[in-house]
Amino acid sequence: MSRLTNLTPAKIKKMNMKQLEKLAGEMRELIIQTVSENGGHLASNLGVVELAIALHRAFDSPRDKILWDVGHQCYAHKIITGRGGDFASLRKKDGLSGFPKPEESEHDAFTAGHSSSSISIAHGIATAQRLSGSENCTVCVVGDGAIAGGMAFEAINDCARCDERLIIVLNDNEMSIDRSVGALSRYLTGIRNGTAYFKFKDAVARTMERIPVVGGEIKKVSSDVKDRLRDMLLSDNFFQKMGLVYLGPADGHNIGRMTELFLRAKQLNRPVLIHVNTVKGKGYSFAENSPDTFHGLGQFNIATGTCERNSQDSYSVLMGTELASIAKKDKTVCAVSAAMVAATGLANMPKERLFDVGIAEEHAVSFSAGLAAAGMKPVCALYSTFLQRAYDQINQDVCLAGEHVVLCIDRAGIVGEDGETHQGLFDVGILTPLPNMVIYSPFDGEELKDCLRKAVYSHSGPVAVRYPRGAAVRREEDRRSAGDGYAFYRRGGSGKRLMVTYGRETGRCLKAAEILTGRGSGADVLSIIRIKPIPEETADIAARYGEVLFAEEGMERGGICEEFLAMLVKRGFKGNYMVAAVGDRFVKQATMCETLEQLGLDEMSLAGKFSEKTNET
Amino acid sequence: MSRLTNLTPAKIKKMNMKQLEKLAGEMRELIIQTVSENGGHLASNLGVVELAIALHRAFDSPRDKILWDVGHQCYAHKIITGRGGDFASLRKKDGLSGFPKPEESEHDAFTAGHSSSSISIAHGIATAQRLSGSENCTVCVVGDGAIAGGMAFEAINDCARCDERLIIVLNDNEMSIDRSVGALSRYLTGIRNGTAYFKFKDAVARTMERIPVVGGEIKKVSSDVKDRLRDMLLSDNFFQKMGLVYLGPADGHNIGRMTELFLRAKQLNRPVLIHVNTVKGKGYSFAENSPDTFHGLGQFNIATGTCERNSQDSYSVLMGTELASIAKKDKTVCAVSAAMVAATGLANMPKERLFDVGIAEEHAVSFSAGLAAAGMKPVCALYSTFLQRAYDQINQDVCLAGEHVVLCIDRAGIVGEDGETHQGLFDVGILTPLPNMVIYSPFDGEELKDCLRKAVYSHSGPVAVRYPRGAAVRREEDRRSAGDGYAFYRRGGSGKRLMVTYGRETGRCLKAAEILTGRGSGADVLSIIRIKPIPEETADIAARYGEVLFAEEGMERGGICEEFLAMLVKRGFKGNYMVAAVGDRFVKQATMCETLEQLGLDEMSLAGKFSEKTNET
Repeated sequence: MSRLTNLTPAKIKKMNMKQLEKLAGEMRELIIQTVSENGGHLASNLGVVELAIALHRAFDSPRDKILWDVGHQCYAHKIITGRGGDFASLRKKDGLSGFPKPEESEHDAFTAGHSSSSISIAHGIATAQRLSGSENCTVCVVGDGAIAGGMAFEAINDCARCDERLIIVLNDNEMSIDRSVGALSRYLTGIRNGTAYFKFKDAVARTMERIPVVGGEIKKVSSDVKDRLRDMLLSDNFFQKMGLVYLGPADGHNIGRMTELFLRAKQLNRPVLIHVNTVKGKGYSFAENSPDTFHGLGQFNIATGTCERNSQDSYSVLMGTELASIAKKDKTVCAVSAAMVAATGLANMPKERLFDVGIAEEHAVSFSAGLAAAGMKPVCALYSTFLQRAYDQINQDVCLAGEHVVLCIDRAGIVGEDGETHQGLFDVGILTPLPNMVIYSPFDGEELKDCLRKAVYSHSGPVAVRYPRGAAVRREEDRRSAGDGYAFYRRGGSGKRLMVTYGRETGRCLKAAEILTGRGSGADVLSIIRIKPIPEETADIAARYGEVLFAEEGMERGGICEEFLAMLVKRGFKGNYMVAAVGDRFVKQATMCETLEQLGLDEMSLAGKFSEKTNET
Repeated sequence: MSRLTNLTPAKIKKMNMKQLEKLAGEMRELIIQTVSENGGHLASNLGVVELAIALHRAFDSPRDKILWDVGHQCYAHKIITGRGGDFASLRKKDGLSGFPKPEESEHDAFTAGHSSSSISIAHGIATAQRLSGSENCTVCVVGDGAIAGGMAFEAINDCARCDERLIIVLNDNEMSIDRSVGALSRYLTGIRNGTAYFKFKDAVARTMERIPVVGGEIKKVSSDVKDRLRDMLLSDNFFQKMGLVYLGPADGHNIGRMTELFLRAKQLNRPVLIHVNTVKGKGYSFAENSPDTFHGLGQFNIATGTCERNSQDSYSVLMGTELASIAKKDKTVCAVSAAMVAATGLANMPKERLFDVGIAEEHAVSFSAGLAAAGMKPVCALYSTFLQRAYDQINQDVCLAGEHVVLCIDRAGIVGEDGETHQGLFDVGILTPLPNMVIYSPFDGEELKDCLRKAVYSHSGPVAVRYPRGAAVRREEDRRSAGDGYAFYRRGGSGKRLMVTYGRETGRCLKAAEILTGRGSGADVLSIIRIKPIPEETADIAARYGEVLFAEEGMERGGICEEFLAMLVKRGFKGNYMVAAVGDRFVKQATMCETLEQLGLDEMSLAGKFSEKTNET
């Protein structure tokens, strides 16, 4: 694999087809090897190896810009653009990101972690290029799941009328994280399976054979041939109707065929959509057979295809199990997912009341609002980072309308190796200012189940339940729930030292209290479970302490720590108020432990906050 | 017009065509009269009078649910459903809302103020109906501008595969607020202008004549006729491709024709899209000729069509003028609008660098990010309330990517008569937690121009400039800008009393200071202009006062008032901290003055905060 360490687009351009095919195999090996050790996205990356090679053959990055939508399919692109040697550092602290990142390489045209935005960004870049008189191309690769996201449609609707050198590659594998759903998906399947596909393939092949190719570049051909070509290539379809030039579908594992189409698209001087069919997991049978399992995963055994499993149930699984059990008895309870059924634990829901709307968070939330308006009890499960996409729908259609929609906010807090684009650090700040909203942030698994039931049955308006990624924590023996919406852990604070926190950070506060106890005097821990509205009693309790440390696994600005301080000040609190939270920065990839240390949210740092102060006073 | 006072859908159903046409004329008169006095949306409402009548003839509201997308086109619907008598209270405090509102009437199926969400909500309602075995229909009326919004596409993509009784009425008038842009719009124009349109019209007419109608209901016809009908009605088009049954286009001012299509759609037991063509402003020549001007407006003279104009320039106009002047000299400066070119003051931008992307805020922001990534200086102007739609794009594609996009946030703060759905009260809470973001909130017109220039030239990352609706304030003579990012007004606070604020609220603080001075002792006013990051100096100054009142025209939770308190506490502030801001509630329609009084943000309330406290101490 040594030649992968210093690969460049220029080297790719010089290789013949046989060499390229061999190279593709080696790249697959490196990707499989690395993901089996570091975790990451596998199936999607194995699917686009030839596509990445063909792109770098036909285009001249970084002069031409190549954008990868969602971004987690960028591994082959990273290897081709000189990063094969660093590939072992993938997703590690200070290592290669699992997503495109301009600060990492000039070949990464834009940061990408969320879905469906690449056409908009590429259209912006292409427009700027046109205005500045540049002839460079802008290319974006979009999956068939991502293209169903609303903003991709907005972008197509806008760019189709323009004359930019914008090339959209539709990477069609019938699969986003879960199987692509919806009308567009069925439509694409229709194109692929119908006779049109084969007629097309032949037409493309015949026509391409007739175009003279010199030095890798297709020469300009007479307008007569061009028109005939156009007629043949451009059938009557969705994208064509929208005003894009449509080329394809092409076999996404045939480097030569794709290169030809890309070169052709370069000459058109207007937005083109090239439809390629790839196989997710290509070249690794376990991933081909179970692309869902091998979408994003932790360590796994290459030979057996067995994935590392945590022995303890995750919060997602607990939520899904509890919800399924509720739904079994209550026919009004249903679940809504945006292409994340398995990942959010919803797989056991009764099928007729499980709605997977595809990568369409905005629709997911307003659809849920509609269900609620007509008497159902919808539970809409989204990752914290993707819930950001539906902020306005939560604001208007859920909170303002006062609908009883339960938002299950998965992966709230630090997510670790996925890094900046996937951290769940903003949901508290954007949701707590919303009137009518009730928010729970349970710590242990029992609390999660309890909060979910409360969300479904004890409220009649919007409720959110947020919980982190990973294994659910078991209940502490001395936990006391003196009132509604919080839990109290007496750990030798003696009315002097208190940590106030919520959610998973509670566990680290408890450990910090242990450390402090070991040093001579402990600290009590007050864990707020209902973070909106915050139980007044929690501030009453805290106001009696001399030192209060608020620990928050979320942004300090707009965080609960700020609201809690205001509550304390209203109570005439004159003690010492300290905050451990995320400052004004995006949080990069690293292990969970490394990240927490960097942020000062680990138990040692929390304990340290007190000891310093004790020495001072 | 007396019979308009107690109109009901049942009465509409009993009228003959002649009576209905007369009624439509009377409804138009009432709408024109009321809007000329109360302000509101005119052109869109005049366009859908016959459509509303036909809907209430064919469907049985509230059993069948009727949703109006964006919602501002609901006036005729309100008159038909028993609210003609209250119509004079339109948009007034405690009066009829200018948008659908379930708490106002059982005929308003859902709150609506933002665009493109109705199909999602209707699909949710229809799904719930299906699950509960109901045979009721759910109907939503969507404009040709709104249907280009991404989430409408997400909803169509999702619902097309279902078998709900969901009827989407595409109200095609080639116009959202500005002229509809984009590929879809051109496509719809194609349908309308092409020969297909006329062939269709004839086919529909001929077929409909052959279907026996008994008691207003179309009888079931043989499957043979049905199939032929289907073939005739359903041409090969965009919506059809997506899997919807497509009926139309139909003349949206022909009540009989529309009623027939609606009745036909009721029988299909699956999602149907009915395409109707209406004329914005229909029946009032000034509005027909200038639908843009008569979209949303204040008082106007019915006879002359002249609109009330404020003699002073609005913040929007000032911004647009300044930006156009910057753009004239700097070819890298461009402007992006989401169907709001005129309203946001952008009309004077050089045409080639003005991008109106239609109702597509998500795309607008990421498109801007792409422009910035390729060296342009994009200024993206959105209303505060609509910016909510693009939260994730601002988070990921602007802030995380660190792109130099200037967000001009218009209508920030209280908007008055448009009410709950349009208040600009959340932007501060959602934007300030975003790393890399700089936010300006100028008070007077000079500050706005200054902030805009700073945003364009003194920063290299994301910058927002937020300003309110209405006439720009002139600079106070004794304004002092001691440092960067704030202004200070010495008004006899004598180191004791200080009001801290930002943006337009500064004016009311200054008036409150006058009132206080009149009562014996004044209060100084510190107006923060750069609200993120807040200049440290402002907290240094404030910490020296005994009483600090933070006045904020925005939500208290997540507001600057909370962050500022934390800054004071860090400085050991032991004085009295008071807050005047918007509590945990949505803010209903009323005049600006009424609203501010209710919220305690008017000058009397602000002054009152101090006098109480003074009496206490």
